[in-house]
Amino acid sequence: MSKGKDSAGGSEATTPKAAVGRVSLYLRQLESLLKVGQETVSSTQLGAALDITDAQVRKDLAYFGQFGYPGIGYRVAELREALRGVLGTNRTWKVALIGVGNLGRALLGYRGFANRGFVIEALFDSDPRLVGQKVHGKEIHPLDALPTLVRERKLQLAVLAVPPESAQSVCDLVASARIEGILNFAPVQLKVPEDLCLVSVDMGLQFEQLAFQVSQRRAGGAQEPR
Amino acid sequence: MSKGKDSAGGSEATTPKAAVGRVSLYLRQLESLLKVGQETVSSTQLGAALDITDAQVRKDLAYFGQFGYPGIGYRVAELREALRGVLGTNRTWKVALIGVGNLGRALLGYRGFANRGFVIEALFDSDPRLVGQKVHGKEIHPLDALPTLVRERKLQLAVLAVPPESAQSVCDLVASARIEGILNFAPVQLKVPEDLCLVSVDMGLQFEQLAFQVSQRRAGGAQEPR
Repeated sequence: MSKGKDSAGGSEATTPKAAVGRVSLYLRQLESLLKVGQETVSSTQLGAALDITDAQVRKDLAYFGQFGYPGIGYRVAELREALRGVLGTNRTWKVALIGVGNLGRALLGYRGFANRGFVIEALFDSDPRLVGQKVHGKEIHPLDALPTLVRERKLQLAVLAVPPESAQSVCDLVASARIEGILNFAPVQLKVPEDLCLVSVDMGLQFEQLAFQVSQRRAGGAQEPR
Repeated sequence: MSKGKDSAGGSEATTPKAAVGRVSLYLRQLESLLKVGQETVSSTQLGAALDITDAQVRKDLAYFGQFGYPGIGYRVAELREALRGVLGTNRTWKVALIGVGNLGRALLGYRGFANRGFVIEALFDSDPRLVGQKVHGKEIHPLDALPTLVRERKLQLAVLAVPPESAQSVCDLVASARIEGILNFAPVQLKVPEDLCLVSVDMGLQFEQLAFQVSQRRAGGAQEPR
């Protein structure tokens, strides 16, 4: 659980995952600010929308560089570019989609990915009835073609949209194919080798947020901060 | 953006959204701790896994009650129950699923929802070819049946799995049908009346986290905290 890392007093050399999570949120906010033409922002303002203290904001951003100007705060456009660089979303990522069922097809049509540089380049499924079919103009390949296609097309990331039962075995295959990172939608904990990055998507989290808001509103404590 | 609320010095009466987001994460962690039989946990330990200071943890939890014991910390099982109460996930929510395309069908089969008390009770779609069909044993109703069915079946929440183009008009219909909260998967910003809760799911966020981890690993700064 809390092994090795303690943000209160630990080493500053490692980059904490949760700080990176907040970087995505800072980035969304900076994008909103740019849209309304705001040019500078303070750490207090950035923190307020996430309900984090200004000190935490400065600490989070300090992991990645010195972005602030005394008396000014952060320059919105500059910080946005810097954070895009930090997140690696200022470039294109080639993605393998594994599992072309309902979820896979939904993800294939999701516009939020390509917008941010995540381009699904190849489709894979273990079902022989699907292999050879085309979805959104892309052919579905058999799973065992993965290692070859990863090499040939220089695929870097894989999205796992497979049933929980087969997620680990597919994950093992992905690991052997020299993919660098997995985005896992199956509601299971996967074991990956140390050199493979893994992010799992828990779609239940947002439902909990909604339940909370509705509960609060019912209780009459409805005043949401934003 | 940062209107009205400043966590550094603002009013303590309102509950900050972001603190609630962290409650979900604390809850996941408490569940992991329970599985391994740990009975108590300190705010430092809870904070470390999220890379948040112990002070921030105590502040977050203090919004919802007094849970800590001096010299002991938090009792894991007790805090878990309390936080489930806070989030409203210790009860059952009746959910309308609107949009029975690929994403809707994927969500219908997603096990992480029912486990946490979110039960999809009725399906709706605007496509007349789908109306009357059954998916997972549940009939698909036309959109205009929504107000009646919300009333009859006491549906409380709606999941919007519709294309971005139609999301706002569906949202307006949901609002008029006295649904209390919307979980929106369409990548658009929706306008909702003040008394309707809205949470939007941004599936691009997790992709960014993965891109960051891979970028870090490539740069040789691979040491992830957990």
